[in-house]
Amino acid sequence: MTASAAPPRGPMGYTLLATDPATGARRGRLQTAHGAVETPVFMPVGTQATVKTLEPRDLAAAGSTILLCNTYHLYLRPGHALIEDLGGLHRFMGWDRAILTDSGGYQVLSLAELRRIDEDGVAFRSHLDGSRHVLTPEKVMEIQLALGADILMALDECPPHDADAAYHRASMERTLRWAARCRAAHPSDEPALFGIVQGGTLPDLRARSAEETRRIGFSGYALGGLGIGEGPAAMYATVESATAFLPADAPRYLMGVGTPQDLLECIARGVDMFDCVLPTRNGRNGTLFTSTGRLNIKRAVHARDERPPDADCACYTCRNFSRAYLRHLYVSGEILGLRLNTIHNLHYYLDLMRQARQAIEAGGFPAWKDATLARMRVEPTTPQHAQETRTDD
Amino acid sequence: MTASAAPPRGPMGYTLLATDPATGARRGRLQTAHGAVETPVFMPVGTQATVKTLEPRDLAAAGSTILLCNTYHLYLRPGHALIEDLGGLHRFMGWDRAILTDSGGYQVLSLAELRRIDEDGVAFRSHLDGSRHVLTPEKVMEIQLALGADILMALDECPPHDADAAYHRASMERTLRWAARCRAAHPSDEPALFGIVQGGTLPDLRARSAEETRRIGFSGYALGGLGIGEGPAAMYATVESATAFLPADAPRYLMGVGTPQDLLECIARGVDMFDCVLPTRNGRNGTLFTSTGRLNIKRAVHARDERPPDADCACYTCRNFSRAYLRHLYVSGEILGLRLNTIHNLHYYLDLMRQARQAIEAGGFPAWKDATLARMRVEPTTPQHAQETRTDD
Repeated sequence: MTASAAPPRGPMGYTLLATDPATGARRGRLQTAHGAVETPVFMPVGTQATVKTLEPRDLAAAGSTILLCNTYHLYLRPGHALIEDLGGLHRFMGWDRAILTDSGGYQVLSLAELRRIDEDGVAFRSHLDGSRHVLTPEKVMEIQLALGADILMALDECPPHDADAAYHRASMERTLRWAARCRAAHPSDEPALFGIVQGGTLPDLRARSAEETRRIGFSGYALGGLGIGEGPAAMYATVESATAFLPADAPRYLMGVGTPQDLLECIARGVDMFDCVLPTRNGRNGTLFTSTGRLNIKRAVHARDERPPDADCACYTCRNFSRAYLRHLYVSGEILGLRLNTIHNLHYYLDLMRQARQAIEAGGFPAWKDATLARMRVEPTTPQHAQETRTDD
Repeated sequence: MTASAAPPRGPMGYTLLATDPATGARRGRLQTAHGAVETPVFMPVGTQATVKTLEPRDLAAAGSTILLCNTYHLYLRPGHALIEDLGGLHRFMGWDRAILTDSGGYQVLSLAELRRIDEDGVAFRSHLDGSRHVLTPEKVMEIQLALGADILMALDECPPHDADAAYHRASMERTLRWAARCRAAHPSDEPALFGIVQGGTLPDLRARSAEETRRIGFSGYALGGLGIGEGPAAMYATVESATAFLPADAPRYLMGVGTPQDLLECIARGVDMFDCVLPTRNGRNGTLFTSTGRLNIKRAVHARDERPPDADCACYTCRNFSRAYLRHLYVSGEILGLRLNTIHNLHYYLDLMRQARQAIEAGGFPAWKDATLARMRVEPTTPQHAQETRTDD
């Protein structure tokens, strides 16, 4: 009787706890070897085994339960073998909650030199020292297992959003073959392995990619190739159409997205997991996210402003410092400013997700979403520069 | 009866609690409007209203009870009037313990352009924007009072250590006249005002400077113009001879010094207060102070070393991270590395002072000092580069 009372569990212990009756929004829970992850969730980006400027205790204080780390960067420096020898990534960086690693494919295509894609995988030269490397589906499984991630990502290609349809189709088909090879190399759900749906903004390609990736069978499904310049309308439409082909009992992860508005719109379209460099990178650029929109701390108007960045925010920065002080730190080139801005922005993103989860549970998600977006008066929509949503930080 | 049981209090509530019978080491307490400061004390340097990379809570965790902030920098940016309007420096930077501000004279002479010293004060151009400014004894009192410091410093000139005797004498005499003008501009002990003894390494000049500064009368007495290349033997000898002319019931402050060894040697010669950029600047350069000497975290030998920087250290960095991780952060250019190194180094310096205070109280200072220095096998003596002991960070 006790067992039957528990909600059904999908792969990797994903539990769908509630669905919003009016939208596609879902409230779920992902069980990992490093704790439970309540979804919808935002994953801070810890590119080089650190979320820039922050310590693990800062992430815990902000309520973070899962981080994304970048396989490409850690493979090149300090190397997955070194991290494995030292007990794995969790121990290396002092983080005892969950970690998702990407496959490295995206960074190879955006950062590395002399890259070449063929059926086997991607060959490239390191952006650090010019050394030659090849990442294959099998190799990226080996690297991510050595790192000790809780969630591994299959190798995929993320073509430019404006590639022609023929390229999108050929690339998507190859990504499917790579997905099958990743699955064969790691035929287990412990740690979890997620497949990645590609296909640009072409509905038929996305549908085929989703169906075939689902047929291979993964613990979760990611949407790749979005938030890279296609614009919010195309992104939202693609997310909405693609999630319809994904199983309800597995988590859906929209890679590299996005603004607060993007998160809310895509939660409404059935997405459970997000990662993005926006809160951390913008923090270091002096842009703070607040409940009433973005705030550029560099502006002279803040020079004598005693108010915290966001009067509604309970983060360490807002509880202790004024806009005037944060502006002083920024214009003086002080590292502390980058850190205090980052603490605030991550708290903002994670609190937004907390509120979204509560709203779904309470059955008031659409009203909460509309009210929250209405308050962000000056919040722009999806950034149109790929730079802003690069998936490493 | 209760009153007579308390030790006698000097100016500014300085209480001499114990003296070491074998050396000049003193255990004391300074009462300020922002709490008690147990001496000997090391003051972290918060140049631009922040100890670089650290938050007030980090400084409190390390046991810091007093910071030094730089008048020159804060005068130029964001300006003392702005800080005063926002409630003073404590509130601006979120620090509720004591603050000592320097006079700005040292930075004018080391950083500013087109500087010119005359009887009235120092004229210079800002290193930030080339704007013209004049700092006089009266002006530096006005600035420091506006900032709201607990301890103000008189304006002085710090000549190069190898200036000729005639220059040293003329400069020292002018510093005496400036000291009298500072005292006249601020004839109160609330906040406290310290005079500065100059005179290079020339014993007769130091003696006259100390006697005349004492005659003017201050809440405390600083030794300036040391740790700027004269070498440890000359510095220690000068400190020893100068403190002999200073009153026992007032604190003595050795400005801009120094290495852990310098601190111990100068405590033994009667110094109560120190400030130096070494722990913070070296942290950002990848040099860690440990109980067995300095450790260069950049070295390849640390790449796979699971040990903390210092097994005897209880700081956040040593409790949570390996040398391997700190090296990875450093070589990867991660801000977190600069911060974790700084947390460790300041903890080391403040803990060294805690141990010194305990040793003086327990009557075992000489033995503790010898044992501590013997453990620092690779610890070099006073840095011979003025860069390393600049008093702003």
